[in-house]
Amino acid sequence: MWRDLLPVGRDPESGGYRRFAWSGADADCRDWFREQAETRGLTYEVDRNGNQWAWLGDPLAGDAVVTGSHLDSVPDGGAFDGPLGVVSSFAALDELRGRGAAPRRPLGIVNFGDEEGARFGVACTGSRLAAGRMTPEQARALRDADGVSLAQAMERAGYDPDTLGPDPERLGRIGAFVELHVEQGRALDLSGDAVGVASAIWPHGRWRFDFHGEANHAGTTRLDDRRDPMLTYANTVLAARKKARLAGALATFGKVSVEPNGVNAIASLVRGWLDSRAADEETLRELVAAIEQAAQERGARDGVDVQVVRESFTPVVEFAHDLRDRLAELLGGAPVLPTGAGHDAGILSGDVPTAMLFVRNPTGVSHSPAEAAAEDDCLTGVTALADVLEGLACR
Amino acid sequence: MWRDLLPVGRDPESGGYRRFAWSGADADCRDWFREQAETRGLTYEVDRNGNQWAWLGDPLAGDAVVTGSHLDSVPDGGAFDGPLGVVSSFAALDELRGRGAAPRRPLGIVNFGDEEGARFGVACTGSRLAAGRMTPEQARALRDADGVSLAQAMERAGYDPDTLGPDPERLGRIGAFVELHVEQGRALDLSGDAVGVASAIWPHGRWRFDFHGEANHAGTTRLDDRRDPMLTYANTVLAARKKARLAGALATFGKVSVEPNGVNAIASLVRGWLDSRAADEETLRELVAAIEQAAQERGARDGVDVQVVRESFTPVVEFAHDLRDRLAELLGGAPVLPTGAGHDAGILSGDVPTAMLFVRNPTGVSHSPAEAAAEDDCLTGVTALADVLEGLACR
Repeated sequence: MWRDLLPVGRDPESGGYRRFAWSGADADCRDWFREQAETRGLTYEVDRNGNQWAWLGDPLAGDAVVTGSHLDSVPDGGAFDGPLGVVSSFAALDELRGRGAAPRRPLGIVNFGDEEGARFGVACTGSRLAAGRMTPEQARALRDADGVSLAQAMERAGYDPDTLGPDPERLGRIGAFVELHVEQGRALDLSGDAVGVASAIWPHGRWRFDFHGEANHAGTTRLDDRRDPMLTYANTVLAARKKARLAGALATFGKVSVEPNGVNAIASLVRGWLDSRAADEETLRELVAAIEQAAQERGARDGVDVQVVRESFTPVVEFAHDLRDRLAELLGGAPVLPTGAGHDAGILSGDVPTAMLFVRNPTGVSHSPAEAAAEDDCLTGVTALADVLEGLACR
Repeated sequence: MWRDLLPVGRDPESGGYRRFAWSGADADCRDWFREQAETRGLTYEVDRNGNQWAWLGDPLAGDAVVTGSHLDSVPDGGAFDGPLGVVSSFAALDELRGRGAAPRRPLGIVNFGDEEGARFGVACTGSRLAAGRMTPEQARALRDADGVSLAQAMERAGYDPDTLGPDPERLGRIGAFVELHVEQGRALDLSGDAVGVASAIWPHGRWRFDFHGEANHAGTTRLDDRRDPMLTYANTVLAARKKARLAGALATFGKVSVEPNGVNAIASLVRGWLDSRAADEETLRELVAAIEQAAQERGARDGVDVQVVRESFTPVVEFAHDLRDRLAELLGGAPVLPTGAGHDAGILSGDVPTAMLFVRNPTGVSHSPAEAAAEDDCLTGVTALADVLEGLACR
């Protein structure tokens, strides 16, 4: 099963995956999902937002236990982020059947569309639409780097973009949603556990820092006469790292744009995007304020005007405490840990009791071909997911 | 005369100029030059490299005194860089005639093509070709951002790219070349002089710094597990500034590219281009070595691999000492100052006795619409150039 999926959308040079929403590689992944559902005699359906579902038992009976994740990837992503959760869902179902367990609640497996947002820029589009966190008009109007709208891309892939929209009826059938995911850090590696349970998703946001200086000739302008925004940017990058370390939080500048971006030109404008996350919103707010203050202070020295715009903010997501505690108990006291990454499970957590399982990632690397999980740990993850499904659905 | 040229190639939004080689704006500037030559009854010619010449007297007589500059601009350039030298040349000729001076040597005015290299990436293409500092094959193969080759652009502008090549015969006619240029710094503003004489062009070069780290998820990767090249880059930007200040030299990072350049991705690669210049080659070499050492040291701390590639290097240009001293004497002891910027005069200095005059720029700003020169100073510049031409050609 895992082997069938491995070559799909893989870049032969980097070894990374390029499975973007509504692309050919995405269609191949979807065909694979449908085949897995049909091979097992599960009821297969695609919802109005293009998310795929496979059901054991009557999907309309209500109070279902659902597991799953996503199959799409970031550019040059790893093999596990997303697919591990979907593959483990089918494997856990196989294990449940092998145990002769008899579910008393419907069991569902889901593949949420466009979780990474790699093509159209908005993460978790499939679950966001279903939960009414994004309007169909907003979704249809999203465009990729080639100017193709999400509506056009869906049509080309043989789907009808007019059906997009909130799906409370389908979400209402779900009594519990459990998403298994490769860990995107090294907490389990450091604690020596193969599997853990998520406590919460850290609040996080994106802030755009605009550093306005003055374009000038790099070969003739005296240092004292410069208003060079690159200096202010550089100092802010280092300040962000230092202040994040002191706050026990995360702060990253990973995207930059420069004008005019010429080798012999002092920049007139440097834009840097700050991604920051912390365990609680108060810490995050204080951290970003401290970074902005450092930028303003250095800007005043450099003659550079600094403007900060918050582009997005996602509050803390606390997973359902009783479900989380039940999972930890079912898994014999597995560690409970927070994560800094967004997931479909986070989007659904406002509407559905939701939990997550993490599988150890020895490199801690994510969104890269270096992302890893040992085969033994993946099998432990499948058993843990089977235990959870059995505990929730069969007792 | 100045007023006719002002609107050509001006961006209505920024107020900056976009006069790129072989564009429509460039053709308009060339028409203007021809008209100025013909109005004055000068012998007009275009050489094999597209440079325009206007002659008073027999251009073939030899030992000519030539002045001029260029009419093209950087993107959003100022009004003075280039055009001030060409306009002042015609105005100085008018003033010479007004004085009734009788030149005993041929007087030439030149507009060198594509000095800024804004479109095809190589500065001083017109003078480089004439001096044999660039082969016609290299020039024809240059491409602009739209993939148009220099050869195609010349053809579209009605010129024959097959004629490009070295022009020793034409350069051999020149006994002295004097280029007047707006100062691209504030040395004259600080010394309180309207006009100065160039001593030398500082040696300068471009170095590409590649900072190789590891792509990872900005929301889940512990700070201690990161190999973030943005930190190493930022530290190097600040180190370059500090070390340049200590060395009395210039160092600028104005161009950056980042991979994958995603807001939620720790960068895998940051490329920064260093432009550095100093009064002598030894100082420049030591400065760049010190910046590289700082980058390597910080890279070792960040787990980031640093590679430095020298992309170009131009040795010091010493202008002809006797011509320089003669100019300073003719101008009653005008200050003699170096510059960090390259010019056609620098390219020609290996083949022709060459000098430069600078006109005060109160903002010191260059390659930007904020570039400035007071009308009085421009008129002083014209008189100074007329004095120089009279001194060299009429006595």
